[in-house]
Amino acid sequence: MAPSAYDAITAPIVAAIDAEMRAIRAEQQPVAPLLWAIVDHQFGWDLPAEAADEARRVGGKKIRPLLMALVAQAVGGDYRPALPAAAALEMLHNFTLIHDDVMDRSVERRHRPAVWMRWGTAQAINVGDGLYALSNIAITRLLRSGVPAHKVVRAAEALSQACLWTCEGQVLDIEFEAREDVTPGEYLTMIAHKSGTLIEAAARIGALLSTDDEAVIAAYTEFARSLGVAFQVRDDALGIWGQETLTGKSATNDLRDKKKSYPVLVAFARAAPHDRATLRALYAREALDDAAIAAVLDILARVDAADETDRVAQTHYERALAALDRTGIRNEAQDIIHHLAQFLIRRTY
Amino acid sequence: MAPSAYDAITAPIVAAIDAEMRAIRAEQQPVAPLLWAIVDHQFGWDLPAEAADEARRVGGKKIRPLLMALVAQAVGGDYRPALPAAAALEMLHNFTLIHDDVMDRSVERRHRPAVWMRWGTAQAINVGDGLYALSNIAITRLLRSGVPAHKVVRAAEALSQACLWTCEGQVLDIEFEAREDVTPGEYLTMIAHKSGTLIEAAARIGALLSTDDEAVIAAYTEFARSLGVAFQVRDDALGIWGQETLTGKSATNDLRDKKKSYPVLVAFARAAPHDRATLRALYAREALDDAAIAAVLDILARVDAADETDRVAQTHYERALAALDRTGIRNEAQDIIHHLAQFLIRRTY
Repeated sequence: MAPSAYDAITAPIVAAIDAEMRAIRAEQQPVAPLLWAIVDHQFGWDLPAEAADEARRVGGKKIRPLLMALVAQAVGGDYRPALPAAAALEMLHNFTLIHDDVMDRSVERRHRPAVWMRWGTAQAINVGDGLYALSNIAITRLLRSGVPAHKVVRAAEALSQACLWTCEGQVLDIEFEAREDVTPGEYLTMIAHKSGTLIEAAARIGALLSTDDEAVIAAYTEFARSLGVAFQVRDDALGIWGQETLTGKSATNDLRDKKKSYPVLVAFARAAPHDRATLRALYAREALDDAAIAAVLDILARVDAADETDRVAQTHYERALAALDRTGIRNEAQDIIHHLAQFLIRRTY
Repeated sequence: MAPSAYDAITAPIVAAIDAEMRAIRAEQQPVAPLLWAIVDHQFGWDLPAEAADEARRVGGKKIRPLLMALVAQAVGGDYRPALPAAAALEMLHNFTLIHDDVMDRSVERRHRPAVWMRWGTAQAINVGDGLYALSNIAITRLLRSGVPAHKVVRAAEALSQACLWTCEGQVLDIEFEAREDVTPGEYLTMIAHKSGTLIEAAARIGALLSTDDEAVIAAYTEFARSLGVAFQVRDDALGIWGQETLTGKSATNDLRDKKKSYPVLVAFARAAPHDRATLRALYAREALDDAAIAAVLDILARVDAADETDRVAQTHYERALAALDRTGIRNEAQDIIHHLAQFLIRRTY
């Protein structure tokens, strides 16, 4: 598929998701204007109409709600009834980003100051909580799309379950930072929950709103679950080797920040005793300098960590495609879903 | 009504709410055991069976879900179908407590270390988020109580709206700390949202699950809205004069902590220029010592802040009782609701 065809179909859907989110926000009677100013900042809604391009960039790629809408389109022939759930998912995702930035002390989000940097930790916690509440209000708007009430409850339950799993993944992630013996398998469980469950919920809810065929719902769920893991493992590889091969920049932040991402855990698990002792000593340091990063890269090369990481990403990606095939659905929206999956895994940036 | 009759009726309901919460928790497949250990700590579920009294104390009075159950009983003759919503409300309330303790740096909650004190700020944020997700899962269990799906959606929406308002109230509360010119009226708006909306949602959801009569639902909503404000204003009075008159202890923590509660704002608004300048100077200090507290108490006395606070609490309390009367419902559960309201306002501790 040509990129232009992909864009021609997805751009209006992304715009419709943004419009739905704005409509939900506009319905609220502000009690604390500051909360809404921060929500507007998070989504780029504070930017003037002239800055539409920048607003789109600040608003993010909206991959998850786009996937939900595409699944609804592929299964039911119309993405529009799913828009309130897509808006709810994107709000939920952004609430987790606002809280994650507090926990990680990340100073920037989409080229703007993170919420806690500009308004403080307490208000960042509050606005995250409020945005999750707004997400829960958003999904009840499915009723107005003509979705039967029992399906609305099921969609709300799937979204809440995904949020709970995301939180559990985040709890594990923080615990893992303080542990030396995290296995690659434990790490995959963690990212499947922290990063994967919202992607899984996107496809699941898109399907269940559009069909009663449980096999189809299960196949889309399995597709997105595997895709989520493949995506995160691929992201880990790019965090170490991506920019270097593509842009020639120095070894990337993930090593400098001592992130114990998948390739590093492979090295911890596979390295010969001497290399493992070196790794342990390096990761006990406060920070890694260029020489230390070079040493880690050498060890990663000796255990074929890049190949192993690619292999795991590829395995999950193939599992995802097999599940997508099992849905039995063939149409233009399904082609777009396939293209989106390919983009998420084959990307080099 | 004799206290023993009140206890005989409410104790089994509080126990049923706790059992429902435990059942919801038991249904989850733990991914991150730490999250569940912290949830168990918050509700006292980590205590052994022998420590049932302590567990009840740690678990809290459960005023909000109790009110919901009593309204369901008064309106529909059976509180049990409302139990999933009552459990959801109590989980939601506790998620806000966990996050509030982070924001206020409160070290204790119900005589135990606050979550953030024991497990750190990041995990306290995570577990609060996860507990809110669990609350959203809990309310979908209403379907299993035989509640029609459209009522489940309406109850979920009411709970989410209450949560959003609670967050907005908390945003205002934090903003007010840094402001010198907060009026008593602004303060009442803030507490009506921060403290009142979950009490309001309790009565509203209890009613809407039990009847289609919108006038009855509206009357219970109005009852709880006014009760919530009366309760908080009364709490503010107790925070300054309560313990002193009852126990003879020194002037209480609310003045020492420079909390700008309702009586203090009345003083700021009403004091003569000289007294207002004194107040302003005192509240610009880092902390208030005994002499400063005595000076504030003198100013509060000169503007009749205690009487004015009582008057506002009484006005809202009477409005609450009038709304309760408008429901037209007369039965034992309604008597218990009346008794509970009276206890919340007439208490001296």
